Amino acid sequence: MEDTIAAVATAWAPAAIGVLRLSGPQALPIALQLARRTKPLRPRYATLATLYEEDGQPLDQAILLYFPAPRSYTGEDLVEISCHGSLYILRRLTELCLSYGARLARPGEFTLRAYLHRKLSLEQAEAVADLIQARSAAAHRLAMSQFKGAYTEKVRAFRQQLIEFLALLELELDFAEEDVEFASRAQLHQLLEALKVEIARLLASYRAGRAIREGIPIAIIGRPNAGKSTLLNALLAEERAIVSEIPGTTRDTIEERLILGGYELRLIDTAGLRATPADPVEAEGIRRARQKLQEAFLLLYVFDASQESLSEAQKAAGQLVGDTPPAPILWVANKIDLLDKPPLAEGAIPISAQHRIGLDRLEEAILAELNRQGLGEEVLLSHLRHQESFLRAREAIENALRLLEEGSGTELIAEELRAAQAAIGEITGEITPDEILGHIFAYFCIGK
Amino acid sequence: MEDTIAAVATAWAPAAIGVLRLSGPQALPIALQLARRTKPLRPRYATLATLYEEDGQPLDQAILLYFPAPRSYTGEDLVEISCHGSLYILRRLTELCLSYGARLARPGEFTLRAYLHRKLSLEQAEAVADLIQARSAAAHRLAMSQFKGAYTEKVRAFRQQLIEFLALLELELDFAEEDVEFASRAQLHQLLEALKVEIARLLASYRAGRAIREGIPIAIIGRPNAGKSTLLNALLAEERAIVSEIPGTTRDTIEERLILGGYELRLIDTAGLRATPADPVEAEGIRRARQKLQEAFLLLYVFDASQESLSEAQKAAGQLVGDTPPAPILWVANKIDLLDKPPLAEGAIPISAQHRIGLDRLEEAILAELNRQGLGEEVLLSHLRHQESFLRAREAIENALRLLEEGSGTELIAEELRAAQAAIGEITGEITPDEILGHIFAYFCIGK
Repeated sequence: MEDTIAAVATAWAPAAIGVLRLSGPQALPIALQLARRTKPLRPRYATLATLYEEDGQPLDQAILLYFPAPRSYTGEDLVEISCHGSLYILRRLTELCLSYGARLARPGEFTLRAYLHRKLSLEQAEAVADLIQARSAAAHRLAMSQFKGAYTEKVRAFRQQLIEFLALLELELDFAEEDVEFASRAQLHQLLEALKVEIARLLASYRAGRAIREGIPIAIIGRPNAGKSTLLNALLAEERAIVSEIPGTTRDTIEERLILGGYELRLIDTAGLRATPADPVEAEGIRRARQKLQEAFLLLYVFDASQESLSEAQKAAGQLVGDTPPAPILWVANKIDLLDKPPLAEGAIPISAQHRIGLDRLEEAILAELNRQGLGEEVLLSHLRHQESFLRAREAIENALRLLEEGSGTELIAEELRAAQAAIGEITGEITPDEILGHIFAYFCIGK
Repeated sequence: MEDTIAAVATAWAPAAIGVLRLSGPQALPIALQLARRTKPLRPRYATLATLYEEDGQPLDQAILLYFPAPRSYTGEDLVEISCHGSLYILRRLTELCLSYGARLARPGEFTLRAYLHRKLSLEQAEAVADLIQARSAAAHRLAMSQFKGAYTEKVRAFRQQLIEFLALLELELDFAEEDVEFASRAQLHQLLEALKVEIARLLASYRAGRAIREGIPIAIIGRPNAGKSTLLNALLAEERAIVSEIPGTTRDTIEERLILGGYELRLIDTAGLRATPADPVEAEGIRRARQKLQEAFLLLYVFDASQESLSEAQKAAGQLVGDTPPAPILWVANKIDLLDKPPLAEGAIPISAQHRIGLDRLEEAILAELNRQGLGEEVLLSHLRHQESFLRAREAIENALRLLEEGSGTELIAEELRAAQAAIGEITGEITPDEILGHIFAYFCIGK
């Protein structure tokens, strides 16, 4: 961190304003060189300055902001240059910074430095990337709660207690010949049980947390011509804030994203799903569609209410998804515009996808079901990395509990406690091998 | 301008930083409401603050910068909110500003307000849009010189002198019965002649100025199979900073953009151009291709050096573009890799487009020719609006000169001087009908 990094921090398209950031020991000297000033910048004060090309030609008028270490985003000397959002100007500014001694920042390097200077915990640093990418209110809330350190504090306290017990156990090992017991086995057992419950709670929330971040999969199923695609399009047309289509969807399933009630939904039209495949190619398509169903939080079973009753639909659905469906089913009675009299059996939601009737009620039912499944919770585990660490922690804790119950030797128990606290320490960033850091920050954009 | 406007000022894509701007009397109160602060912000000082949703949930941590009137971009109270570059956060922030009493800014409205508060001349305000859109060093230099008021100062001084003479002439009209002459006719004549020369100089630079802003058209012509497309692709492949393809190119001409020596070039492959059309459809294609040639600053005539000599090529070119070509021709002897011995006649540039031989020399020759045509000049007229005003000013000045030479009455001369100063005043913005303002700022992006 002896070097100074530079990168454009705003999105790469022409705009009113563009911002370039410099962080490191040379941040201020480089900014002064760009502005051909000798007087240092007043800290945290917006200074209007003309920036110059190397040949003395004016490049732009900009606002310079100097944040001296340690009161800056990175904890280092940092300068923000707010200029006209011209790609030419931003490119030239970057080139000039490099020629004055800065290095182009790697993805996430500003935030990495913030973490290394203890301005952010690792959990918070990861939340920054989530915050930027969040597309729905729920994803934003989740990222924000992580940014505020939602479970860092909680697991940090547990880890602290583990470490204290570990110290006592190690003391026992030092006095092994005297056969003393500094650490209360009963209290240790109690701590491990409490920690196990907490970790189980967080692990159980991972599926929901991931769905909030990546979009909640909901499958639309039903017979051909029941109106599945029409429903998909009707739902998309209803909602303004449509997230753009995702590339790389398979031929077998069409996936569309929309924002509903603060959630980002991934609506999956399982066009390829039939009860009996005609040939091996179709069988493969059905296998993939079934896989998609396994991920879904909710199935919308669409049937043609002018042709079929709810109980007939339920029979047909059984053939499609089996007797124990992979997710709750909402029964959607479509084409009610073709019925003479108002429907319907209890338990189905009457709609006309084509005429956009009843969609409000359907949307309400979807949201009620998602809230019932705990997707509205404040603290959810949402990172694969955290899940993996917690799984390792849980394994070590379960081993330790078993060893305690078996009355095993101190050395073995201490070994498991060491593994457990290390696994938890990886989440908060107190223990972090370099390759973990590289992995985390590679997912950031440049300039962050 | 009693209301407060708000808009995101950075490009609309996820990024490390996004900036929202508020300008107007409510800018500070709205910012304080977002941050739930009562203490006003210290002027021009970077204040870290948490911003909240209406329900009290934290939305983001942001840096607030308050620029009190008149020392701000718009000349009004202005607050810049620099937050995480999340589209969700930026959208919510905008919505909150609107619900706290701001109005969404129209395109260019911040800069319009800067003009109306006399922070920028109209010429400078127009240059802001050019500055943001500039893709090449030359376009940037041109916009920057306009931003610095390159010819505003010059024409303003002329206009001032016109107005002084006008005042004297009007004094004469007041004393019409006494037949006095306050304004020296000889000095007025001199001023008008000098102004005419200056305006002629600026008008002559308009073609070059427009080409710098929009890309310099260069046509590639030659017989079929001479290697025109191969040359086009080879030039594009050489240059890294390729500007993306322009949509809506006709079938008859393919246009590609590239940056060369700080210029943005529009390379036009006139595939449809033949000496003799086969049918009416082709005749129309040829008509369009010829039209393109009229705009070109340079023609690259490509011939197959393994099949044709330079003098043969020159004869063939005559059939294609006539004896007086619309632009200078560079003779490009292609396919020299097929020749046994090194070429060639003087006056042609030997290359192999396929094997990328000789492209450096060709590029140098192109740049030398463009500089020869004055494209490197510092001050160039580049806006159609300015051209139109100067044309009207020139007409009035020529009329006034004629009237002076004819010894016409004071009233008629004064009338022409009024028209001339008004036309010039429109460029600098001293005289600006509302419809002109609307037209200018409609070309801005929102947030500027």
